[in-house]
Amino acid sequence: MESEQLFNRNGYYRNGYNSITSASSDEELLDGTGVVMDFHTSEDDNLLDGDATSPGSNYVMSNGGGVVSSTTHLLDFLEEPIPGVGTYDDFHTIDWVREKCKDRERHRKINAKKKESAWEFTKSLYDAWSGWLVVTLTGLASGALAGLIDISADWLNDIKEGVCLNAMWFNHEQCCWGSNETTFAERDKCPQWKSWAGLILGQEEGPGSYIMNYFMYIYWALSFALLAVLLVKVFAPYACGSGIPEIKTILSGFIIRGYLGKWTLLIKTVTLVLAVASGLSLGKEGPLVHVACCCGNIFSYLFPKYSKNEAKKREVLSAASAAGVSVAFGAPIGGVLFSLEEVSYYFPLKTLWRSFFAALVAAFVLRSINPFGNSRLVLFYVEYHTPWYLFELIPFILLGVFGGLWGAFFIKANIAWCRRRKSTRFGKYPVLEVIFVAAITAVVAFPNPYTRQNTSELIKELFTDCGPLESSQLCQYRSQMNGSKAFVDASPNKPAGSGVYTAMWQLCLALVFKIIMTIFTFGLKVPAGLFIPSMLAYYHHDWLVFREWCEVGTDCITPGLYAMVGAAACLGGVTRMTVSLVVIVFELTGGLEYIVPLMAAVMTSKWVGDAFGREGIYESHIRLNGYPFLDAKSEFTHTTLAREVMRPQRSDPPLAVLTQDDLTVEELQVIINETSYNGFPVIVSKESQRLVGFALRRDITIAIENARRKQEGILLTSRVYFTQHAPTLPADSPRPLKLRSILDMSPFTVTDHTPMEIVVDIFRKLGLRQCLVTHNGRLLGIITKKDILRHMAQLTNQDPDNIMFN
Amino acid sequence: MESEQLFNRNGYYRNGYNSITSASSDEELLDGTGVVMDFHTSEDDNLLDGDATSPGSNYVMSNGGGVVSSTTHLLDFLEEPIPGVGTYDDFHTIDWVREKCKDRERHRKINAKKKESAWEFTKSLYDAWSGWLVVTLTGLASGALAGLIDISADWLNDIKEGVCLNAMWFNHEQCCWGSNETTFAERDKCPQWKSWAGLILGQEEGPGSYIMNYFMYIYWALSFALLAVLLVKVFAPYACGSGIPEIKTILSGFIIRGYLGKWTLLIKTVTLVLAVASGLSLGKEGPLVHVACCCGNIFSYLFPKYSKNEAKKREVLSAASAAGVSVAFGAPIGGVLFSLEEVSYYFPLKTLWRSFFAALVAAFVLRSINPFGNSRLVLFYVEYHTPWYLFELIPFILLGVFGGLWGAFFIKANIAWCRRRKSTRFGKYPVLEVIFVAAITAVVAFPNPYTRQNTSELIKELFTDCGPLESSQLCQYRSQMNGSKAFVDASPNKPAGSGVYTAMWQLCLALVFKIIMTIFTFGLKVPAGLFIPSMLAYYHHDWLVFREWCEVGTDCITPGLYAMVGAAACLGGVTRMTVSLVVIVFELTGGLEYIVPLMAAVMTSKWVGDAFGREGIYESHIRLNGYPFLDAKSEFTHTTLAREVMRPQRSDPPLAVLTQDDLTVEELQVIINETSYNGFPVIVSKESQRLVGFALRRDITIAIENARRKQEGILLTSRVYFTQHAPTLPADSPRPLKLRSILDMSPFTVTDHTPMEIVVDIFRKLGLRQCLVTHNGRLLGIITKKDILRHMAQLTNQDPDNIMFN
Repeated sequence: MESEQLFNRNGYYRNGYNSITSASSDEELLDGTGVVMDFHTSEDDNLLDGDATSPGSNYVMSNGGGVVSSTTHLLDFLEEPIPGVGTYDDFHTIDWVREKCKDRERHRKINAKKKESAWEFTKSLYDAWSGWLVVTLTGLASGALAGLIDISADWLNDIKEGVCLNAMWFNHEQCCWGSNETTFAERDKCPQWKSWAGLILGQEEGPGSYIMNYFMYIYWALSFALLAVLLVKVFAPYACGSGIPEIKTILSGFIIRGYLGKWTLLIKTVTLVLAVASGLSLGKEGPLVHVACCCGNIFSYLFPKYSKNEAKKREVLSAASAAGVSVAFGAPIGGVLFSLEEVSYYFPLKTLWRSFFAALVAAFVLRSINPFGNSRLVLFYVEYHTPWYLFELIPFILLGVFGGLWGAFFIKANIAWCRRRKSTRFGKYPVLEVIFVAAITAVVAFPNPYTRQNTSELIKELFTDCGPLESSQLCQYRSQMNGSKAFVDASPNKPAGSGVYTAMWQLCLALVFKIIMTIFTFGLKVPAGLFIPSMLAYYHHDWLVFREWCEVGTDCITPGLYAMVGAAACLGGVTRMTVSLVVIVFELTGGLEYIVPLMAAVMTSKWVGDAFGREGIYESHIRLNGYPFLDAKSEFTHTTLAREVMRPQRSDPPLAVLTQDDLTVEELQVIINETSYNGFPVIVSKESQRLVGFALRRDITIAIENARRKQEGILLTSRVYFTQHAPTLPADSPRPLKLRSILDMSPFTVTDHTPMEIVVDIFRKLGLRQCLVTHNGRLLGIITKKDILRHMAQLTNQDPDNIMFN
Repeated sequence: MESEQLFNRNGYYRNGYNSITSASSDEELLDGTGVVMDFHTSEDDNLLDGDATSPGSNYVMSNGGGVVSSTTHLLDFLEEPIPGVGTYDDFHTIDWVREKCKDRERHRKINAKKKESAWEFTKSLYDAWSGWLVVTLTGLASGALAGLIDISADWLNDIKEGVCLNAMWFNHEQCCWGSNETTFAERDKCPQWKSWAGLILGQEEGPGSYIMNYFMYIYWALSFALLAVLLVKVFAPYACGSGIPEIKTILSGFIIRGYLGKWTLLIKTVTLVLAVASGLSLGKEGPLVHVACCCGNIFSYLFPKYSKNEAKKREVLSAASAAGVSVAFGAPIGGVLFSLEEVSYYFPLKTLWRSFFAALVAAFVLRSINPFGNSRLVLFYVEYHTPWYLFELIPFILLGVFGGLWGAFFIKANIAWCRRRKSTRFGKYPVLEVIFVAAITAVVAFPNPYTRQNTSELIKELFTDCGPLESSQLCQYRSQMNGSKAFVDASPNKPAGSGVYTAMWQLCLALVFKIIMTIFTFGLKVPAGLFIPSMLAYYHHDWLVFREWCEVGTDCITPGLYAMVGAAACLGGVTRMTVSLVVIVFELTGGLEYIVPLMAAVMTSKWVGDAFGREGIYESHIRLNGYPFLDAKSEFTHTTLAREVMRPQRSDPPLAVLTQDDLTVEELQVIINETSYNGFPVIVSKESQRLVGFALRRDITIAIENARRKQEGILLTSRVYFTQHAPTLPADSPRPLKLRSILDMSPFTVTDHTPMEIVVDIFRKLGLRQCLVTHNGRLLGIITKKDILRHMAQLTNQDPDNIMFN
C-alpha cells in the first residue's frame, strides 16, 4: 500500500486522500501513459439506495461491481489539488483533525519519495530535522531579544534620572563600575554619572535640582509612553497588551493574521522597552511570551512543514511560549509547565520535549548575554538556606488568602475598567489615556524611592536577605552606627534603625500606589505585562507580618522568603496558575525546601480566588474580548443535550443542506449566497436525510471558480455531484461538475441524545470545528464551536452575542 | 433544570441520565404523590419512520405530540438503577466517556442536595476534599513505605556480610556510628561489627574466614531470593516484576483485579526488600511505583467518588505513580513528569496539580524518615559546581550513542530471553530459575568489591567527586602516599596510584557482569526494577573515557558528571524517557549547568535506540504480555480506512444487531448465547439499518435477570423494546420488557471512509471501547479497541492473536 502513495496527486486534503486510498485498496492499475485506471468503488451510492438490504451485506454488495470508467482523463484533471482549498480565512477556526491528516499525508509522501534519489533523501532529512531546527532558532532568537530588551530597558530607565558622561550607552551601574573613586558602600555615586540637575544646573543637591530632576523624570517618562503608544497605534495595533489571552486563543485553533507577524515583533520589542522604561506599572513577562511566539511564527515560515499546516505551527508556538517564560523568569522547566498548563491547547509529548529544548536554548542564550551582570538568568535570583518552621505555615496560608483576595479584586476591577473603556467614549482616546496614566505614575512615583526605581530592582532588593554587603535602607535595623550606610554586622537582634521605619511606610505607599496603577495600566494600548507588578504588589505585605515576628526577638524569619511566597500567592491569585508557578519560583530559589510554603500559599490563593470567580485574568480578558476560546480546564457541568444546542432550533429556518447529485451550479450558488454558514452537510436525498459528508463554503466557492476558469463547458445549469460517478443526465445537458474532492466524507456526528458534556469533550479533545447531529441515522442539525460557546454563555447568563467569530 | 435532578432515580448511568434529562427538557410535572408524569418526547420513533419529512422538520415534528402516558408507576419501577449495570468484568476495558459522565452526574446530585441539610453539606464538602485527601494519604503511605524499604533493605544487605553485636537491628554503618575506637578513615571498621567469619571462626582475616564469609554471603543471598520467590508464588503472583508495564496498561483503561490490591502491596513490599538484599541485579525504582499505586488504589476505596468510578480511580493512580518516582529518586517534579510522560493515559490538569502534591508529600515523608542519614531524599545526591567545557559535548554525545546501543541491545536480549522463558518448558520452574540466577550472582559478585556492595552505594561512590575525605580506591590516583587510604590531598595532577588501576578493571568486570545478569534478572518472578542496574551499567564506561582525558594532564574532568550523564543516557536508551529523565537527574544534582550535557546524551541515546526499534522496555513487555494497550505516543501512519478494520469483513458472518422493538426475550437470549460480543448495536429495523444505540452484553444479561426476578409477567415470549413507549401488541401477549435504561443512546459513530488514523486518534483521546461504522446513515459494522490493536499488529507483521483481551 505504501508504494501506491506515488499515485496520490491529491493527497494534501483529507477527502482527496480518502478517495485515492479507497481506490488503491481495491486493485488499481497503472497503464502505459501513467493514467490511473479507475474502478468502481463502494462510494457509488446508487447501488446502495435500495432499502431492502440485509444487515452486514451493504459492504459486501457495494464492493462487487467493477466497471471500468472511461472518464479517467477528466477525473485526473479534476482531482488535481485546487489552489486555496484547505486554507483558512482570517478570524476563522482551524480544523485540527484535518490539519493533522494533512501533515501525516505530507509525511507519508516524503517517506515514499526518500528512496528515489539522494536529493529526496536530503529533503526528507531536512524535513525530519526541521522541528528541532525551528525550536532551536526560536530559542536563540527569544533569548537574544530578551537580553536586548533587558539591557535597553535598563539603560532607558536610567536615562530618566541622568546620563553617563564618558559613555552615553552605559547605564548607571555600568557607568560607575569603571570608577576608582567610589567606595563599595557608595557604589551608586560616581562623578561620571550626572543627574539631569547636575548636568543642566551644575549642582547635584538642593531643592532646585530636586525639582529639575523631578521635571526631567516626568518629561522622559511621558516621552517614552507617548512614543510607545504612537508606535503601537500607527504601526502594529496587535502589539498592545500582554498578548497572552490572544496567544491562548490562537493556540486553541483560531486564526488572527498578523498577530504574530514581523511588524508586531519589531514594534512590540521597541515599545516594550519604552513602556518599561516609562515607569508604567507593568512587567515584561507576558510581552516576552508574545515576542517569543512571534519569533516562533516567523521562523516557522522557513519550513513548509510548519508554515503550511496550522496545527503543526501551533506546536512551534507552544514551544515558543515556553521559551518566552523561560527567559522572562530564567526558569526553563517552569516555562514548559507554563506552556502546558496555561497557554497550550494541543500539547503532544513530542512538543513537550521540543518545548523543553527551546526553553533551555533561550535560557542559555540569555545567560551568555548576561544582561544583569550576575551570571544568572534573572535579576532576582536568590539562594536562601535557612530552614522554615512549621508554625510559619500560618502566615504563609494567610499570604495565600491575601493573594487570592487581591487576585479576585484585581480581576474584577481591571475587567470593570476595561469594559468601561470599551463601552464609553473614553476608549476613543487611547493615546491621551496612556499619557494621563504615565503622567500620574511619574508624578506620584518620583518622590518615593521604592516606586522610582525599576520594579525588577525593587523586587531584587526585597527578595534578598540582609547581609553585611547590603546597603539598602531596609537592612538598617541591623546596624547600630547611627544610620550611616557603611558596613553593618549581621547580628539579627539589634533594634531597628529609623531607616527601617521610613522604608516601611514608603513601601506601604508604594504597595497601595502600585495596586491602583496596575489596575488601570493592564489593558492600555501599550505592551503590558502583569507578572512583575503583581509580584511586587503583594510582596510588601509580608514586611508587616515579618516585623512583628522579628521584634519578638526570637527566631528572626527570612523576610525574603515571605516576599517570595507573597509574590507567588498574588500571582497565583491573578493568573490562577498552580504547578507552573510553584516550579517557576522553585527554579528562582533553587531549593526544594521552600516548595511546601509555596504550594500552601499558591493553593490557598487559588482556592480563595476561585471562590470569587473561577476565571483567571487571561480567561477574563479572553471573554471580555469575545475570543472563541473553548477552555479545556473548566468543566461543562450542565445537563443539556446536543439537540438543545444544535441549529436549527424550532424557530429557526430549516438546515441548509446540499443533495449529493441533483443540484445545479446555479442552485448551489444561490444556497451559498443566501446563507452565511461556513459549511453545508451533503445528504443522499431530501427524502431520506441520510448524511454523506460535509463541504466547506470556502472550498465550494474556490472549486466552482476554479472549474469555471479551467474547465470548459461548466455552465450555470451544469449539474454538481459529490458522488464517485456522474449521475445519468439527459443527452443535451451541459457537462457536470464533480466536487467529490472537496467533500469531507468522514464528518463527525453525534446523536441528538448525546449529553452536551460529551459533545464539549469531543470538541476540546479532537479540536473540532463543527459536528453534525443525527437521530436514528438521519441528519437533524449541526453544532459548531460557536454554538457551544454561545450555549455556555447563555447558561452562565452572559451575553451570547459577544463572541467574535467567523 | 438543576432542581429537576432530584427526580433522577437512574442517573448513575449515562443512558438513564439521558432519558431523564431529555424528559425534563420538555415540561415535566410533579403530581401530589411525587410521581413523575411522563410526556411523550421525541424518542418516539414511530412518528419518525415515515420517510417523507423535509430537512429540519424532523425535530419539530417529533416534539409535537403530548399524550400523557398512563404507565408512570411501571416506568418508575423499571427505571430504578439495576444493580451491577455499569460495572466491569475482570480483564475488560473501561469506557472512559461513560465513567466521566457517571462522575459528573454524581457531582451534580451532590451539588443539588447540598443545600438540603447541614449533613448533606458536610457530605458535599467531604466529597470535594476527597481528591486531596486521597492523594495526601497516598503520598504519606508511599513515603513511609519507601523509607521502610530503604532501611530494611540496607540492614538485610549488611546481614549478608556480618552482624552488629550490640544491636542486631543496626546495619553496618549505624553499628559503627556509636563506636569511639574508629578513626574517620577507617570508619567502616569497628569491633561491634562482626563479619560472619569473625563470629563463627573467631578470626577476621585469612583465607579460611574469606571462604567462610563467601559461603555465608551466598547462603544469605540464596535464602533471601528463595523466600522472595516463594512468597510471590504462593501469596501474590501479581507482585513480581517491575509492575510498570501493567500499571501503564491499567492506567490506559484496563481492569486487572487484584493487581493493585492489599495482598500485592504487602507481598511486594516484603519481597522487594528481600530481592534487593539478595544481591540480584535489580533496582527498587519500578517496584516502588507499583507499591505507591497499590497505596493509591487501597486509599481510593475509602472514598466512593474514586472507588466506584474507574476513570476517577485512575487519576489517583497517576498521582500515586508520581509519588512512587518521587520517593525512588527524590525528585518530585521529575516524578510528575514521569507520570505525565511515561505511565499516564488520561492526565487532566487537575491531576497534574494533585500528582505534584502527592509527590511532594511522599518526598517530605521520606526525608523526615531520613533513611540514608544524610537529610537528603536519595542516597546519591551530588552537588558539583565545576563547569563543563564545550568540547566535552563530544564524549557526552558518545555516551548517548553508547546508551542508545545498550538500550537497544538490552531490550532485544531481555525480550528474547523472556519469550524463550514463556515458550519453552524452562518457564515452568520459576523458583529454580530465581535460585539459579541468585546463586550465580552471589558467586560471581562476592570477589569483586564493586559488585559485592549495594548497587545504590556503588552509584553513590561513582557519582561523588574525589575530595580529601574520600577513602575510596577510585580516588587513590590523587594520593602519593604509597597506596595507603589515609587523607589525600586534592591536587589533580598527581599520577594515578595502583589502586586506581585495580579499581578500573574491577569496575570493568562489574560492568560486564551487571549487564549480563540484568538481562536475565528483569522478568524473573520477583519484584525487579530496572533503573538502578541500568544506571549503574553504563556508568563505568565513562571511567575509560575519563582516564584518557585525565592523563593528558590538562583539565581534569569531573568524573562524577560523566558517571551521571552515562547513567542517564543508558536509562534513556532502555526506557526511552526524555524530559522526565532529564528533570529527575537535574533534581538529583540541583544544578541547571548540567542540563545541556544531560539533554545531549539523553536525546542521542533516544535517537540511537529508536533506530533499532521504537519501543522502550516497558512497551516491549506490554507487547510481550499482550496487554491491550493503545500507545498514545506512537503515531498511526498507515492509510487504511475504517471499513477495512471494522467487523464484519467480507468473509465474516453478518453483524449481530438487535432491533429496537420486535425481539422477544428468548430471541435476545439466543443472540447473546450464540455470540461472544461484548455489546450489540440496536437498530430501528432490519430493513432500514438505521442506528438507535448500543447495548452492552453484560448490561442486557443483568437487566433480564433482574427483570425476571423482580417483575412479574416477564416470560420468554415477552417482547423486549428499547423505545420510550411499548410497541402495540396483540391483547393476549405477555407483558413487554423495557430495556431503554441500559441503552446507550449516544454511541460513537464514524463513517466507513474515515481514515484509521482519525479513528485511532478518537479512541486514544476519548478512551473509547468501541465505535460503530456507518455508511450514508446506515449501520455497517463495528470497530473495537481489540480490532484496532489487531489491525496494528497485522500492519507491523506481528501475531495479531497475541492480545489478551475481553
